[in-house]
Amino acid sequence: MLGPGKADLLDGIRRTGSIAAAGRAMSMSYKRAWSLVEEMNAAFRGPLVRSSRGGAKGGGADLTELGEAVLRHYRDLEDAAASACADRIGAIHALLRDAESRD
Amino acid sequence: MLGPGKADLLDGIRRTGSIAAAGRAMSMSYKRAWSLVEEMNAAFRGPLVRSSRGGAKGGGADLTELGEAVLRHYRDLEDAAASACADRIGAIHALLRDAESRD
Repeated sequence: MLGPGKADLLDGIRRTGSIAAAGRAMSMSYKRAWSLVEEMNAAFRGPLVRSSRGGAKGGGADLTELGEAVLRHYRDLEDAAASACADRIGAIHALLRDAESRD
Repeated sequence: MLGPGKADLLDGIRRTGSIAAAGRAMSMSYKRAWSLVEEMNAAFRGPLVRSSRGGAKGGGADLTELGEAVLRHYRDLEDAAASACADRIGAIHALLRDAESRD
């Protein structure tokens, strides 16, 4: 339903106001970016991305309130995972051969 | 250095006492299983897997003390991530279209 790629795409749409521009920034085709947006819009209770295709300004897109909420939950999830795992990752890192030469 | 596949391979070696059998259980070729073991053995401060190739019984393998430690850290890491993320995953799930029809 949602992973790092889709979350980054949502972030890009939020930042650029355009599905095409957000996809381009991730080296993704326009078609691919649209298809991911359509998947997300279909998977959740309502659309995450609101868009107007074409038009004088070539259309635009932004996140709906639900899109903002889902993206926020996802980023919080990443933060929670990262902080919960930091100790264990540190412990594994310390056992790597070149642990000394790293940071 | 270590991900779900390598961790499962370590678990399999631990359980079966054989790199080949552990690989087979994961539908992995003997060559692939060996190459993953060699990667892990080279990446850490010492080997994670101790093996005797060939011989009367066709060789055998088990985890070294370091291998046991690394695997334990990895499983703890998964547990920590899962419990830290449960709430956020729940929140995202609740926003899915078919959240009601799921458990």
